[in-house]
Amino acid sequence: MAIKRRKVSVIGGGFTGATTALMVAQKELADVVLVDIPDQEGPVQGKALDMLEATPVEGSDVNVVGTADYSDTKDSDVVVITAGIARKPGMSRDDLVNTNAGIMKSVTEQIVKYSPDTYIIVLTNPADAMTYAVYQASGLPKNRVIGQSGVLDTARFRAFVAQELQVSVEDVQGFVLGGHGDDMVPLIRYSSVGGVPLTKLLSQDRIDSIVERTRKGGGEIVSLLGNGSAYYAPAAALTQMVEAIVKDKKRILPTIAYLEGEYGYNDIYVGVPTILGGDGIEKVIELDLTEDEKSDLSTSVDSVKSVMKLLPQN
Amino acid sequence: MAIKRRKVSVIGGGFTGATTALMVAQKELADVVLVDIPDQEGPVQGKALDMLEATPVEGSDVNVVGTADYSDTKDSDVVVITAGIARKPGMSRDDLVNTNAGIMKSVTEQIVKYSPDTYIIVLTNPADAMTYAVYQASGLPKNRVIGQSGVLDTARFRAFVAQELQVSVEDVQGFVLGGHGDDMVPLIRYSSVGGVPLTKLLSQDRIDSIVERTRKGGGEIVSLLGNGSAYYAPAAALTQMVEAIVKDKKRILPTIAYLEGEYGYNDIYVGVPTILGGDGIEKVIELDLTEDEKSDLSTSVDSVKSVMKLLPQN
Amino acid sequence: MAIKRRKVSVIGGGFTGATTALMVAQKELADVVLVDIPDQEGPVQGKALDMLEATPVEGSDVNVVGTADYSDTKDSDVVVITAGIARKPGMSRDDLVNTNAGIMKSVTEQIVKYSPDTYIIVLTNPADAMTYAVYQASGLPKNRVIGQSGVLDTARFRAFVAQELQVSVEDVQGFVLGGHGDDMVPLIRYSSVGGVPLTKLLSQDRIDSIVERTRKGGGEIVSLLGNGSAYYAPAAALTQMVEAIVKDKKRILPTIAYLEGEYGYNDIYVGVPTILGGDGIEKVIELDLTEDEKSDLSTSVDSVKSVMKLLPQN
Amino acid sequence: MAIKRRKVSVIGGGFTGATTALMVAQKELADVVLVDIPDQEGPVQGKALDMLEATPVEGSDVNVVGTADYSDTKDSDVVVITAGIARKPGMSRDDLVNTNAGIMKSVTEQIVKYSPDTYIIVLTNPADAMTYAVYQASGLPKNRVIGQSGVLDTARFRAFVAQELQVSVEDVQGFVLGGHGDDMVPLIRYSSVGGVPLTKLLSQDRIDSIVERTRKGGGEIVSLLGNGSAYYAPAAALTQMVEAIVKDKKRILPTIAYLEGEYGYNDIYVGVPTILGGDGIEKVIELDLTEDEKSDLSTSVDSVKSVMKLLPQN
Repeated sequence: MAIKRRKVSVIGGGFTGATTALMVAQKELADVVLVDIPDQEGPVQGKALDMLEATPVEGSDVNVVGTADYSDTKDSDVVVITAGIARKPGMSRDDLVNTNAGIMKSVTEQIVKYSPDTYIIVLTNPADAMTYAVYQASGLPKNRVIGQSGVLDTARFRAFVAQELQVSVEDVQGFVLGGHGDDMVPLIRYSSVGGVPLTKLLSQDRIDSIVERTRKGGGEIVSLLGNGSAYYAPAAALTQMVEAIVKDKKRILPTIAYLEGEYGYNDIYVGVPTILGGDGIEKVIELDLTEDEKSDLSTSVDSVKSVMKLLPQN
Repeated sequence: MAIKRRKVSVIGGGFTGATTALMVAQKELADVVLVDIPDQEGPVQGKALDMLEATPVEGSDVNVVGTADYSDTKDSDVVVITAGIARKPGMSRDDLVNTNAGIMKSVTEQIVKYSPDTYIIVLTNPADAMTYAVYQASGLPKNRVIGQSGVLDTARFRAFVAQELQVSVEDVQGFVLGGHGDDMVPLIRYSSVGGVPLTKLLSQDRIDSIVERTRKGGGEIVSLLGNGSAYYAPAAALTQMVEAIVKDKKRILPTIAYLEGEYGYNDIYVGVPTILGGDGIEKVIELDLTEDEKSDLSTSVDSVKSVMKLLPQN
Repeated sequence: MAIKRRKVSVIGGGFTGATTALMVAQKELADVVLVDIPDQEGPVQGKALDMLEATPVEGSDVNVVGTADYSDTKDSDVVVITAGIARKPGMSRDDLVNTNAGIMKSVTEQIVKYSPDTYIIVLTNPADAMTYAVYQASGLPKNRVIGQSGVLDTARFRAFVAQELQVSVEDVQGFVLGGHGDDMVPLIRYSSVGGVPLTKLLSQDRIDSIVERTRKGGGEIVSLLGNGSAYYAPAAALTQMVEAIVKDKKRILPTIAYLEGEYGYNDIYVGVPTILGGDGIEKVIELDLTEDEKSDLSTSVDSVKSVMKLLPQN
Repeated sequence: MAIKRRKVSVIGGGFTGATTALMVAQKELADVVLVDIPDQEGPVQGKALDMLEATPVEGSDVNVVGTADYSDTKDSDVVVITAGIARKPGMSRDDLVNTNAGIMKSVTEQIVKYSPDTYIIVLTNPADAMTYAVYQASGLPKNRVIGQSGVLDTARFRAFVAQELQVSVEDVQGFVLGGHGDDMVPLIRYSSVGGVPLTKLLSQDRIDSIVERTRKGGGEIVSLLGNGSAYYAPAAALTQMVEAIVKDKKRILPTIAYLEGEYGYNDIYVGVPTILGGDGIEKVIELDLTEDEKSDLSTSVDSVKSVMKLLPQN
């Protein structure tokens, strides 16, 4: 049997989805299929063609296709879901959750119809609950459904620390548990710079301020852009997760994983450190937490649960 | 004296400018400054911050800054101009040229004020005339002012050929002279696949159809997107030109260069094959043209001249 | 089924084999197994371990193993054969061919025993005949057994042209047919720089001198080194061929391919332009040759045949 | 003034020097000059030419030159010293130090003659004392003379941990102080995997065993190779240091740095965490040490001092 290129489908052709498709193509990780709803088929075809026309300059031999037809995603190795609506002024959280949960359900059914043995990465907000919704709708084993939040949060944290200390981003290590944004549980004692604990390099004040800025990282971008939200760093985060899987890198990355007893929780998707490799989430890494951290994680879990309650019952 | 990172400024924070900034940062070519007008300062700051937050994931140690203040571009090694308006329905070509020429003038004055010894790459349409306008406003020697059009055109051509023949984009070589789009002069006899002349691999019909598709390449994307125009491949083209300069690669690339007698023309910027390296356009490569090609180039030059006439006189 | 890393085995742990293993690992193309004979097991284990210890610095997640046990090569996607002896002073060509043919046979039997469905790339000299010997011993279909010679020859040719013209190596295209070294048939009319035919850029004298230097390229290195022969460029060539296969790039590369009627020859391995992708040699590209080129190729084929006659009969 | 490629010279064309030259060229970091003594000029010319012939395949636009003439190193941005003899059976340590110190002196005088404003990285053993010798002979400020040992030691440590835990090498962080080999002071409390302290992931026994293997890492390779010592990982370490400087990455890397009061020592070169960027060692990072660590560092320093005593007095 001939060796085939990997194949990655990205659902949702907005800024984050399109930028993820671009980055996967740039890194020559896989052929890419960018999917959107029928009345957005022209735009995703245009974006995909534009990316394809960049491949000669990049020296990257991958195909990039835009489509509204899920049959084009057939036999994807990995599928990334960025589809969904953003919360608009006046919209209740319940409405947001309901709408996006519905989108997750229909999108997932299409995905697994054509790729019954794939790995799915979920970005759509609120990511913990949406990952759970995809897990339920997919019928896939838990290791094959993975949510993104911590890679982005730690990327922001690392960027801020690197800038503060004027050192290489490659040498800053961050660590978060729990949810995105306000529910994020930063484990500063596991954050370091070239191995040196952050607490030896920055005052508690500066650390607190960086943590706070990370928590509000999405909002900072939204408020600067004026219209729309971040997509470069989110797409880079998704691409790193795709790479960890298609190259079987066994990266230790914070992902939204399904817990079955780890950290004392069950039947819930929440942000924890994991090993991400060729078989998706190959392991949840369980850490001893301090009482404070336990309490923060519990708050984070409660928040996820309150959102999960809003999910439509199957 | 310490070794300093290269510095690249991108003027215009729209899709093409922002994507160029992203790609320059991803390749760790230089610190990047993304510049826009004051009422777009928030958005370019947001985009730049979003890119900066992606650097830890990319492992790229560069700073990315968004600004409306040209003093932030001080001592840029290369400046890329993407600023300008697109032609809107009902707008005459004269209005387009006049408006963009005005923008070129004011932007260039700011650029050379802070980087009197820089290299400038111009994307703004109509690129031949706008490159000329920048050349005039800058007072820089001709090798330091370079227009983009052929890298993008050949990228499209190569993508189409690679797809038609199902071969690697790395092995397709294209070649164009003259202007962008309808004025493009493709030199098929210099186009090859793995060294094999294209004419041995594709029928004249298929070649004609690919040439035609390349000519209309920008329009194809515009019509698919419905709203807006291509930016991924244009940004990749600009980034390749930046790389050729900051790494002194001496690439042979089709660029919009100032002619002083080459091909029989004088005091005009037009698309020709050049050597692009650490001193900008280090050489214009002069080829023997067939009568047909001479005639096509002449048409292309006439078209540039008719636009140049619209440039405001200094 | 989980996604697995590609696996590449390199037979022969000398300089070329080891450097190929290094380059495959650096590019994160595959896990690597470096194989040598039992009394060289220590050295290949040492080299492999040394390479593995470089992976954290390279950021490359692959395993590298040295072994004398072919069972470690099980399920290799691609196997590269660099094993064999070099011609020593006083050794007849017949002895060289006989010895290396015997090595090819025993090595190939071990390879296909553990990887019955692999792709094999042969470097061992004389490469045309040795590739034929591997083809016979392997029982594999012709597309799965590929010899190296033209990628290295064109690399040298391109390097010399780039240096002569002081342009980027990325923009120089070379093209050879036939055998390695003296039997090489350079097709100058298919060689170009940025698409421009070489004959427009260099005098026939300079071209002849570069062709001659390319023909003697291996000897030039041997004579400089004083002891031993080239291995960096040969390893880079092999790695490029491995990459074309494991990434299904469909590169157009000159390889030693089995002919069944192409160019008028049958049942012989000889250097021709091919498409190299996920199914090995996916196509032999047949070109119209001039009478001179036909005659040169015929000489090259005769030379291969005279060596093939020395192969032991099965 | 035109933008020029960086220039890196590597003194010593043995395996480590040549492999460093290769890696610098592969990464397109700089033009490379590989220098050896006159009677090795042929071999380094051969190696350099072989590397140059690989650049078209690598797509890397750099020049690589082998020479015995230091004037070819003129205006190097960075110079790497790998020259020197290895300790042979029966050779006393004093003889080794004396011989290599003499080599450092003469080599350094040649280097600064042609590049009076360069950065020098020293690999030659015993590296602490040899870096001191280079510092003295060069007359350069302390930040411009840097020794290698910790990058290699941590690379080995990281490789062993990654293999033990079957995780990505990218996520393992190691940390050492002091000398190479037996004098290495591993700071396990600063070693982590994805931010998680190593002590939470491995038993003390396993950690001890990995530390011990790291200490003996050089010896393990020597004993496997049977003849010669490690060069792939050492070259990768040197290349990472070169990259940190020429790209001004401000990496936090353990290097052999000149101390003026840091950690309580003066006028000595010893392994400590540093920020390595465009101005060489931009900062020594001072950590609080435990009493045990202080004692280990003191032992390591004593060992350096005992070697320094053997240095010829100027």
